[in-house]
Amino acid sequence: MLGTKLYAPGDVRIEEMPEPTILKPTDALIRLAATCVCGSDLWPYRGANKVDAPLHMGHEYCGTVVAVGSEVTSVKPGQFVVGSFCLSDNTCPHCRFGFQSSCVQREFMTGAQSEFARVPLADGTLIALDNAPADDLIPSLLAASDVLGTGWYAAHAAQVQPGCTAVVIGDGAVGLMGVLAAQQMGAARIIAMSRHKARQELALEYGATHIVTERGDEGVAKVRELTEQIGADAVLECVGTPQAMDQALAIARPGSMIGYVGVPHGVQLDGQRLFFSQTGMLGGPAPVRRFLPRLIDLILDRKINPGKVFDLEIPLAEVAEGYKAMDERRAIKALLRV
Amino acid sequence: MLGTKLYAPGDVRIEEMPEPTILKPTDALIRLAATCVCGSDLWPYRGANKVDAPLHMGHEYCGTVVAVGSEVTSVKPGQFVVGSFCLSDNTCPHCRFGFQSSCVQREFMTGAQSEFARVPLADGTLIALDNAPADDLIPSLLAASDVLGTGWYAAHAAQVQPGCTAVVIGDGAVGLMGVLAAQQMGAARIIAMSRHKARQELALEYGATHIVTERGDEGVAKVRELTEQIGADAVLECVGTPQAMDQALAIARPGSMIGYVGVPHGVQLDGQRLFFSQTGMLGGPAPVRRFLPRLIDLILDRKINPGKVFDLEIPLAEVAEGYKAMDERRAIKALLRV
Repeated sequence: MLGTKLYAPGDVRIEEMPEPTILKPTDALIRLAATCVCGSDLWPYRGANKVDAPLHMGHEYCGTVVAVGSEVTSVKPGQFVVGSFCLSDNTCPHCRFGFQSSCVQREFMTGAQSEFARVPLADGTLIALDNAPADDLIPSLLAASDVLGTGWYAAHAAQVQPGCTAVVIGDGAVGLMGVLAAQQMGAARIIAMSRHKARQELALEYGATHIVTERGDEGVAKVRELTEQIGADAVLECVGTPQAMDQALAIARPGSMIGYVGVPHGVQLDGQRLFFSQTGMLGGPAPVRRFLPRLIDLILDRKINPGKVFDLEIPLAEVAEGYKAMDERRAIKALLRV
Repeated sequence: MLGTKLYAPGDVRIEEMPEPTILKPTDALIRLAATCVCGSDLWPYRGANKVDAPLHMGHEYCGTVVAVGSEVTSVKPGQFVVGSFCLSDNTCPHCRFGFQSSCVQREFMTGAQSEFARVPLADGTLIALDNAPADDLIPSLLAASDVLGTGWYAAHAAQVQPGCTAVVIGDGAVGLMGVLAAQQMGAARIIAMSRHKARQELALEYGATHIVTERGDEGVAKVRELTEQIGADAVLECVGTPQAMDQALAIARPGSMIGYVGVPHGVQLDGQRLFFSQTGMLGGPAPVRRFLPRLIDLILDRKINPGKVFDLEIPLAEVAEGYKAMDERRAIKALLRV
């Protein structure tokens, strides 16, 4: 089969490799309907994370089950499934607390930028649809696997409430999904911080009521002006850089929560600053599995269209171009048709 | 009148000084019924905070109104009042959001270790009792002014829920009040971390179900053992040192909140650690004013007895001994009768 490997920063290749097999009785094998490139794939692609050996890339997926291990009971061959990028048993205390992304058996999905993939912990990770979905829903179901679920978690962690003012920092796919989530949760004002025309337009389509193009101190001043100097009721930090976190801290009103979902790179928080600003924080890898049933329903009912976040659609064989286009910010997110 | 001044680390003096006067139309003057020494007073006393000029000490108070400014409408001379150590107008957006400790007009109370004190923003800060309280309730009402309200906020920020397992780090007055608060909020298990016999006993009296005497890695291991390796559902961090915060992070279960109320001294938080542990955090100066009406009711109805946290009662004139006893951990908290 074809699969994607990252050999070194900037060096991502599609190549022939053996199909995955069932390794554990709790595994499932799926034939991908589509997969995609994630913003977090760009960290090693850009050399920000070390690459020791070739990495089999890809953690976002949906597709058809082709085989299951002997202990798998909730999905069977032939069913169309969607799963989280965090693999979980969905039965341990952390899963039952709603944090499947901290499952005691947690693994992170890998190798999904391929024709076939092995999904460990299939029963606790995958959700089977009653019927194969319409083809035009595939991008949205794929988005549910990570970016939609992650943006949703950011809004949830930030405690977006009906009528509130939410600010979304980051106009990547996750940030845009955060806008969608805040809108679904009833935010009255959604301020998207973005400097890119195409992303601004999509943010507005997803429910943003204001666009702030300024960054740093100017961006903070603009948000404070829009909120009558009160600050935001909820902040979604969808980047992970020190600059983005600084901005989040400067615009969150006292007593509000920052939901942060960008993997922090070089972020250090000063205890005394956090204390006196009274800023609440909750983040981490999104427990997508908690939200998946509802997200899938919203997609199948065509109430949300997260798939629009894919503004580049190419065959899996051209995966290298997908990385390149996202790295150069020519594309928000690249969908790979398998 | 007699008042307390800190001249330099370790050098606290009681001395004659002029009585305070109404400086603003929103001020009230009170005659203290009692006041006390706070754990946070020990930071400058121990030289951890810089002392540039003599500081008029004291921010915990209750007593009788003797005069009010022309704009004060909610309290009047002769009434017995309790107020927060954070002065607030209780009308600004932050106050209405429940964070009076971030009031746009916020000031911190000073000069309460005296016979008389000026309370700015009297309408938004003070609560008048219908009648003068019984003398034996004075210590509890005084505790409501800061330590009780602060422990209560820690439990609230940590999202203590009925049936949950809460861990309280710190066996000072605030930690003990955190135990009391967690008990009132219905926690099923309350683990108090304490190495001091007298404090352990008080913690048990206030509702602690378990005492952990170990610290550092051993303390963490003990809590993890008590929680079947899951970690705590809610953590109250009532110290403010890097060691205490480290301990809190190590015992909080994924998705839980740390409510932290000790002013952080040298605490730096690593973004990536917070992210992958999925620990939520909310802290800061307690919005005591939010909780005061309920706390006063609980005290007047004799449902709680926070005043027991004062294990040393001396005349105001002996304030220096109060500081010394607390610094040497001979006393949990010193009440000064005026």
